[in-house]
Amino acid sequence: MPTHDNNLSIPSASRRSFLGLSAAASAAVALRIVTEPMLAEAQRVQPHSFPKDAVRIDANENPLGPCSAARDALTAIIPEGGRYSFNLTNELVASLAEVVELKQEQVRVYPGSSVPLHHAVAAFTSSQRSYVTGDPGYEAGMAAAGTVGARVVKVPLTKNYAHDVRAMLAAAPDAGLFYVCSPNNPTGTLTSHSDIEYLIENKPKDSVVMVDEAYIHFCDAPSAVDLVKAGKDVIVLRTFSKVYGMAGLRCGAAFARPDLLEKLETHAGWNAMPTTALVAAAASLKDTQLVPERKRINTAVRSQVFAWLDRNGYSYIASESNFFMLDTRQPAKAAIAAMAKQNVFIGRIWPSMPTYSRITIGTAVEMEQFQTAWQKVMTGAVTAAVTTTVGEMPNPRRRNLDGIAFPA
Amino acid sequence: MPTHDNNLSIPSASRRSFLGLSAAASAAVALRIVTEPMLAEAQRVQPHSFPKDAVRIDANENPLGPCSAARDALTAIIPEGGRYSFNLTNELVASLAEVVELKQEQVRVYPGSSVPLHHAVAAFTSSQRSYVTGDPGYEAGMAAAGTVGARVVKVPLTKNYAHDVRAMLAAAPDAGLFYVCSPNNPTGTLTSHSDIEYLIENKPKDSVVMVDEAYIHFCDAPSAVDLVKAGKDVIVLRTFSKVYGMAGLRCGAAFARPDLLEKLETHAGWNAMPTTALVAAAASLKDTQLVPERKRINTAVRSQVFAWLDRNGYSYIASESNFFMLDTRQPAKAAIAAMAKQNVFIGRIWPSMPTYSRITIGTAVEMEQFQTAWQKVMTGAVTAAVTTTVGEMPNPRRRNLDGIAFPA
Repeated sequence: MPTHDNNLSIPSASRRSFLGLSAAASAAVALRIVTEPMLAEAQRVQPHSFPKDAVRIDANENPLGPCSAARDALTAIIPEGGRYSFNLTNELVASLAEVVELKQEQVRVYPGSSVPLHHAVAAFTSSQRSYVTGDPGYEAGMAAAGTVGARVVKVPLTKNYAHDVRAMLAAAPDAGLFYVCSPNNPTGTLTSHSDIEYLIENKPKDSVVMVDEAYIHFCDAPSAVDLVKAGKDVIVLRTFSKVYGMAGLRCGAAFARPDLLEKLETHAGWNAMPTTALVAAAASLKDTQLVPERKRINTAVRSQVFAWLDRNGYSYIASESNFFMLDTRQPAKAAIAAMAKQNVFIGRIWPSMPTYSRITIGTAVEMEQFQTAWQKVMTGAVTAAVTTTVGEMPNPRRRNLDGIAFPA
Repeated sequence: MPTHDNNLSIPSASRRSFLGLSAAASAAVALRIVTEPMLAEAQRVQPHSFPKDAVRIDANENPLGPCSAARDALTAIIPEGGRYSFNLTNELVASLAEVVELKQEQVRVYPGSSVPLHHAVAAFTSSQRSYVTGDPGYEAGMAAAGTVGARVVKVPLTKNYAHDVRAMLAAAPDAGLFYVCSPNNPTGTLTSHSDIEYLIENKPKDSVVMVDEAYIHFCDAPSAVDLVKAGKDVIVLRTFSKVYGMAGLRCGAAFARPDLLEKLETHAGWNAMPTTALVAAAASLKDTQLVPERKRINTAVRSQVFAWLDRNGYSYIASESNFFMLDTRQPAKAAIAAMAKQNVFIGRIWPSMPTYSRITIGTAVEMEQFQTAWQKVMTGAVTAAVTTTVGEMPNPRRRNLDGIAFPA
């Protein structure tokens, strides 16, 4: 797979070009533009919604939204909105169990997979038991670990951006929970089934491995569900937010041994699910063409984007998901702001990769708009001046992490 | 207000009549019918949904469902179901803050008010700090306290079914959280604003008073929101599940000082809300006739039911909410099963009032069906034989508490 070059050095001419400044612009101005205060100012603006016709490729949402059957189910449930309808939870659990070939008691549904992720952190980590994750990795569990006072052990990915399971084991003999997202958020890269097995077989006693398969439907990799079936100390997360296009409806699931699921539940009972989420999820599962069709569309659009980036000499990490990390050649914050000014909202930054932005795969039309804007920003045809809108923020003091927000 | 008679003694003839047995029925059969194993068997049946045309007055749901504007908003959001749309959370918080005249930072929304209730228990109670509640009272907080190892102090209500705040203070010098539901679930009775003020002024330092106002729109009592405004150690809960008819959509709110809200949040970040809930809630708030109109309807139907019960000599607790406690004159489980056989599903039992069932106010037509069935059951015209359906249960090992389930 193509890989980025961490040692890429940008000559000052390119830097000026990136920032949209003529060579005559004063150094003082150039410096001001990339300072933290400017970016902080940009982030202080709190938009209530995106501008009209915005290209929203910042949160790994699926532009296709809920499938047709899910939309029909949503319409049908509206008059029943006054009923808790716990039976619908039972029905979705039964359907999911059938699809993944697990027993119903090995399946639990939640209003988004952030819920079981957070509960797992609360259940299995503590000031004595650390939370171990790949770096860069999805941040929600790290934030959760902070709230329970657990040590967060960030282990760099391998050079192929897989989780380095041997290094994770070596770094945390006190591990309570290992978090492996595959395909990984934000790199879109896979960790092999055999490495996940190795991690499980060699982990400290009483620790648990969580495999977040939020994006697995976009790739060809095997699931870790077989390890749940085999009775291992593993929890597999799934969500209806991604391939199923239901991020706003809130439906996720955890697959694990019943005793592990009980431990998650201790921390929050079982809050009633949104019935809208339940019926849309159940209808989506019945549409057997949904996953292969959307996977095909995503792969096709992603291939086109990668081919365009290759042709134009831009570096990125080859992803097997519906997003990828794109080399911004400069602190990514400025690129994000400049793209927003073009009404194209691209994703956030990870501390260990400050010159990369995560780009979600939108529709083919949206990705053409992305390419046009990217070319303008990178060639300096447009400036990176302060914008009035830099994507959605639930609160200036919060970080919005694809479905959950934490204190900034 | 009419009160029940705790010392009511049922002669054996009435008992046979209640159970639908002829005087000739064997004592052995009569005994078997009211034994726990029979009832356990009935409860083991796990229906997937209610029978056709069932009268569902078991979960304090609003039979009117979402209002017309909320239904329109739900229809409109369906195509956007693939977006997290955090801005909608901001907008609902702003609208709610305006309605209750609080600052936005004093308002937070959740997928149902069980969420902040549970988080408050986690934040303010522990093995050293007890959870103090009225008895009978809403059980979700008690179950949550159990999960964190906190002592649960159940203080009997006064003879007028108000919270006995002086007894609550005396019973728990180690209190972490006082829970006051007003109108109280399951009695529908009020605790005065002055008693809530007294509780706050005299509570142990660092403890918090939670006032659950899930049902306040159905009565004329003043809210405790003014105490939030005054900066007291109080958290007020509200929900869109009751008067707004949105139980299945999952939207609740907490009002409190920002520092108290932050403490709740520590335990779960801020999971994205269902956008369906957000738009339906926002639309409902804009319908200024909704609350007065639905309050008027509920009061009218409740008055008719109470008048009928009075005329027919049945005892109940006069409620100021959309439910009331009805004297079953026998262990309530048998009455619930017998009513279910009539396709009328009435509510659950509290341990301190084993001969009462909680009845939700349905539509006028539904309450006529309830009355017809109740007369049949209580006069012995129908039997209390084992039924195949005894309401909705999410899982045989769970207790479904109006929006949240806990291990049984």
